[in-house]
Order: sequence, then C-alpha cells, then structure tokens
Amino acid sequence: MAKRLIPSLNRILVEKIVPPSKTSAGILLPEKTTKLNSGKVVAVGPGLRCSNGNLIPISVKEGDTVLLPEYGGTEVKLGDKEYHLFRDDDILGTLHD
Amino acid sequence: MAKRLIPSLNRILVEKIVPPSKTSAGILLPEKTTKLNSGKVVAVGPGLRCSNGNLIPISVKEGDTVLLPEYGGTEVKLGDKEYHLFRDDDILGTLHD
Amino acid sequence: MAKRLIPSLNRILVEKIVPPSKTSAGILLPEKTTKLNSGKVVAVGPGLRCSNGNLIPISVKEGDTVLLPEYGGTEVKLGDKEYHLFRDDDILGTLHD
Amino acid sequence: MAKRLIPSLNRILVEKIVPPSKTSAGILLPEKTTKLNSGKVVAVGPGLRCSNGNLIPISVKEGDTVLLPEYGGTEVKLGDKEYHLFRDDDILGTLHD
Amino acid sequence: MAKRLIPSLNRILVEKIVPPSKTSAGILLPEKTTKLNSGKVVAVGPGLRCSNGNLIPISVKEGDTVLLPEYGGTEVKLGDKEYHLFRDDDILGTLHD
Amino acid sequence: MAKRLIPSLNRILVEKIVPPSKTSAGILLPEKTTKLNSGKVVAVGPGLRCSNGNLIPISVKEGDTVLLPEYGGTEVKLGDKEYHLFRDDDILGTLHD
Amino acid sequence: MAKRLIPSLNRILVEKIVPPSKTSAGILLPEKTTKLNSGKVVAVGPGLRCSNGNLIPISVKEGDTVLLPEYGGTEVKLGDKEYHLFRDDDILGTLHD
Repeated sequence: MAKRLIPSLNRILVEKIVPPSKTSAGILLPEKTTKLNSGKVVAVGPGLRCSNGNLIPISVKEGDTVLLPEYGGTEVKLGDKEYHLFRDDDILGTLHD
Repeated sequence: MAKRLIPSLNRILVEKIVPPSKTSAGILLPEKTTKLNSGKVVAVGPGLRCSNGNLIPISVKEGDTVLLPEYGGTEVKLGDKEYHLFRDDDILGTLHD
Repeated sequence: MAKRLIPSLNRILVEKIVPPSKTSAGILLPEKTTKLNSGKVVAVGPGLRCSNGNLIPISVKEGDTVLLPEYGGTEVKLGDKEYHLFRDDDILGTLHD
Repeated sequence: MAKRLIPSLNRILVEKIVPPSKTSAGILLPEKTTKLNSGKVVAVGPGLRCSNGNLIPISVKEGDTVLLPEYGGTEVKLGDKEYHLFRDDDILGTLHD
Repeated sequence: MAKRLIPSLNRILVEKIVPPSKTSAGILLPEKTTKLNSGKVVAVGPGLRCSNGNLIPISVKEGDTVLLPEYGGTEVKLGDKEYHLFRDDDILGTLHD
Repeated sequence: MAKRLIPSLNRILVEKIVPPSKTSAGILLPEKTTKLNSGKVVAVGPGLRCSNGNLIPISVKEGDTVLLPEYGGTEVKLGDKEYHLFRDDDILGTLHD
Repeated sequence: MAKRLIPSLNRILVEKIVPPSKTSAGILLPEKTTKLNSGKVVAVGPGLRCSNGNLIPISVKEGDTVLLPEYGGTEVKLGDKEYHLFRDDDILGTLHD
C-alpha cells in the first residue's frame, strides 16, 4: 500500500502532467504542442517558519495546476506513482483554463 | 485552448515585443534601430512575502511596456504564443512614449 | 553499553529503514519497489536559536517516519547501531500509512 | 520617436560624458587628461523597497554629474542616444565644479 | 605552567576522548568499536552577540560529553595537553550514558 | 579646473601619502622605513542607508590620517591629482602622532 | 617617531608574542613547546555599528593576551615594531595564567 507524504516546511509534492502525445481520435501531436512542464499539487508543507516566529504560508494549494521549472525538484516514488518535491519558491506560477 | 498563467510570488509574465524589421512602406530597417529589448507585461504575481509577513508589491503592472535584461528569464509557451517569466528585480525599467 | 545522543540545535537523529528485500513468504522483491529512502526519528534537537532570542522549533518529532534526501547526513555509530544526523531543513517530509 | 525610460527600483539612467579630445581651439588633448569616467543622471528609479515596507531612496537625483565605475552598467539605446543603467550602489560619487 | 583559555564568542574548547584500544583485561578492541568521535567540553565562550544586542547562548556547557564532526576544529596546545576549538554550531550533539 | 567629488554612500576619498624616500638632508631612506600605506581623508560620503531607514555614519572624517589596505580602492583622477576611493569598512584604522 | 593606530570598527591591533626559544639558563627549548600563537592586545576599535544603530562591542580589551588563528591578520609596521590587525571574530580566545 502506498504511503502518504506530508512535505516539510515550504516543500510541495507535485504529480507531473504527462501531456497526451495523441488526440483522442488517435492523431499524433507534434512534440512542441505538448511541451508545457506542468503538474498537479498533491500536498503542501506547512510553510517556512522564520526567526521571528512567523510562518510564511505556501503560495499554492492542493489541486492547483502549477508551472514547473525545467530542472530541479526531487523525485519521490510512493507506491507505483512517481512524484516530485519542489520548494514553494521554485514554482513558476499556477495555470488556469 | 491556451491556458492562463498567474505568475507566483515576484514573477512577471512578459510578451516580448518583436520590433518591425521593415517600415509599413516595406523599407528594411537597419538592425541597430531595432535593438531595444522590450516587452509588454501580461500578468504579475502577488509579490514576495517576507519573514515579517509583509508583501513586497511588484513594481510594474499589467500592460506596462518594460525594458528587459539581455539574458535571463524563463521561456513559457501558452497555446501558440511564447512568453517569458522574469523576477520583478530583473526588469530594468518601464518605457513610455 | 550504547550511549544516548541528544542532537544539538536543529539536528535530528534518524535510524534508516532498510526495506525488506524479500516478502515474509521468501519471495524476492524487485529493487525498484524498495527504493524509498526513509527513516525513523530517534531524537530531535531543541531547535535553532535566532538572534532575536526565539527558538525555531524542529518540524518533526520522535517516532515520525521521515523521507530523507538521497545525499547528506552525518553517519553516527552508537553501540552496534548506525544512525544518521540531519538538519531539520534537510528532511523532505513525513510518511504516513 | 525616442521612448522615455523610468528605471526600476534602485536603478539610475546615465548619459556618459564624452570628454573633448581637442580644445575648442583645435589642440589635441593627451589621453590621460580626459580619463575621468563621468555621466549626467537622466532618470532615477523610485528606490529599493525593503521587507519592512520602507523605500531606500536613491542617493543621486536627475541632473547630477556622477562618477561611474570603470566596469559594469547596462547599455540602453533610446532613439539615437546611448545611455547606461547603474544600480544606485555602483555610483562612486557626485562631481561638482 | 599551562595557561587557561577562555574561548571567544561562540567557541568551545574540547578535549578529545581517545577511546581505549584494549579492554582493561588487555584484549585488543577492533577499530570500528572505538570510532565515535567525541570529546569533553573544557570551556565555553560567552556566546555570539547579535546586531540587536542579544547574546545567543552556547548550547553546551563545561563537562558535557559532545559528539564532534569528523573534520574541522582548530587544534590548540595548552601546556602538555592538546585541545580543539569548535564553533557551537559545529557540535553535533551531547552524549549521555 | 579640478572638479570636487562627494563620495556616495559609505565611500571615502583618500589622498595617499607618499613617504619621503630621502631625509630633508638628502640621505636616502631604506625602503622598509617608508612602507606604511596611509592616506589623508579628503571627503566622506553620507553613510550607508539601511532597510530600516537608519544611516550608518562613516567612521572617519575629513582630515583624518588613515591606514589603508594593501590592495583595493578605486583610483580617481581629479585635475592633476590622484585619489583613491575606499569603502568605510576597508579602512584599517586612523593614525595619530 | 612611531605613530599610534586606532583600529577601525571591529578591528584589533595585536603585538605577537614571540616565545623564548631558550630558557633563561640558556637551554634550547624544542620547537613544539613554543608553538602557541598568541599576542598582546595593543588597541581595539569602537566595535561594528549595525543597521539598527547598535554598536556590537569588541569582545577583548587592551592588555588581554589572546590566542590567534594560524593564518590571517594584516601586518602593520608602526615605527620599529611589527603588529597585526585582526577582526574581533577571528580572535580564538583569551589566555590567562
């Protein structure tokens, strides 16, 4: 059974979104259409505690679709699934339809 | 359909301005006339949250024409269009007619 | 007789969890199933004291199962057992069933 | 038509002073007489906003003649004219007759 | 006559514990049993004074048995005896029976 | 006509003291007698403005004789004279008869 | 006539103690007995002024015998005598009989 991970401090657990390489009708999509490096936020840490006792809250929340940097992040395997841990500051932004 | 990106923290989404290489009358412009590296601000993040709880606001706003550094910025493709993400501190200034 | 170690400042003493390479029925497990780098928190320091006199508390507690970074940590041998010391900030998260 | 640039944060727009290489009577000046690297401040940013909300004001103002460091600064071309952007902290001092 | 050293700021004077390589009955001990790098705290500094006037107190006290990092520390010879100076932050923890 | 320079922030304008290589009676002095690297403070900046709005005042004043570091400082030529700019923190101390 | 140096900020002027290489009875001392790198504090600066206006006082005083780091410090020659300047933080501790 897969374990559940609660990220520490200002870390964020992300499941990367693998873009479809075909349309539902089976037509192959050219690679450049599918290049956006995004993920779904699965869990967030409590935030970074500062020297003055304040907690800097995480800027994204569970369920957000986020734009990820091309490099970085720590690969984590929970059960069969592969996730990535990022620091809050490494998330480039949130994506909305 | 293109997604909309809300930049995180002190990031700024910029659409680079490609200067015309010809005049409207079709006359080719020499390269040096067209060298200014500028862009239009498409979206700005909420600002950087500091350890004392304050939010340092972004110094530019949507619609501003900004002068960009020659290097740096993260390329982002949303739909057919290409954008760049910069940190607020990397923007060199705003351009006005 | 093994000595007891109380970690200093924001350090955490962890006993790494060696995953079973066989099931209890003796069936060999493929390596990738067993790759999660985790440990049990054995002791935590008092936290880091800041210039303003505040103590930043440790974000994990004795008994927690934690996800560890692939590199880093200081090996410590107490009696027959091998432990690792990590800084609080190096712990990636806590694992829960 | 040349655009006007308002520098961001603690940046300063400077027009470098090209020293005359001849006297008005046409006598060539030896190079070492003309070596002072100075400029005229054309525009200044609003200052750097700190985490406590304060704005550190720029230490020079429009019209000041400033001594510039030998290296550094970002070249900017506005219309036909060439300018340089410096951080407030890079300005070595102000020159007075 | 040996001089007495009062460490400055957040420094700690430690006398390293050389583990017995034989039991009292004369039996040679294998090297790995004796590997723990520990020492006895001989003297501690007053602590680090911060910009706000506070003193961050030293986290260990005279007489403590401490776990030392494998590298680092400054060798000091007082009279016939050899000691090591460490910064408070370099001490890994305190050892207790 | 030589311009007057007011150093910016925590900078200090120094005229280096060239030690006599002969006594007034014409006797050559060995080089090591003349080695002290000192200067006369010609002008000081207003000090460094901090994020809390405070100004850290310059620790030396016009007319002080200062001990200079062997390396560093920025050469500045005003009229016929050569000066050096140093940061307040680079001045090693003040010399008194 | 030798000049007097008042160190700036958190600097300390030290006269190194050259240990006797013979006893008073003329017996040569082995080198390792004489290795302690110590000095006498000749003058101290006013301390480092922080951004909040506070002055961090120097932790040693004139006349103290101090333990010096093996490397570092700036050699200064005043009259015939050779001294060394150290930052307060570089002093390892004070020596007492």
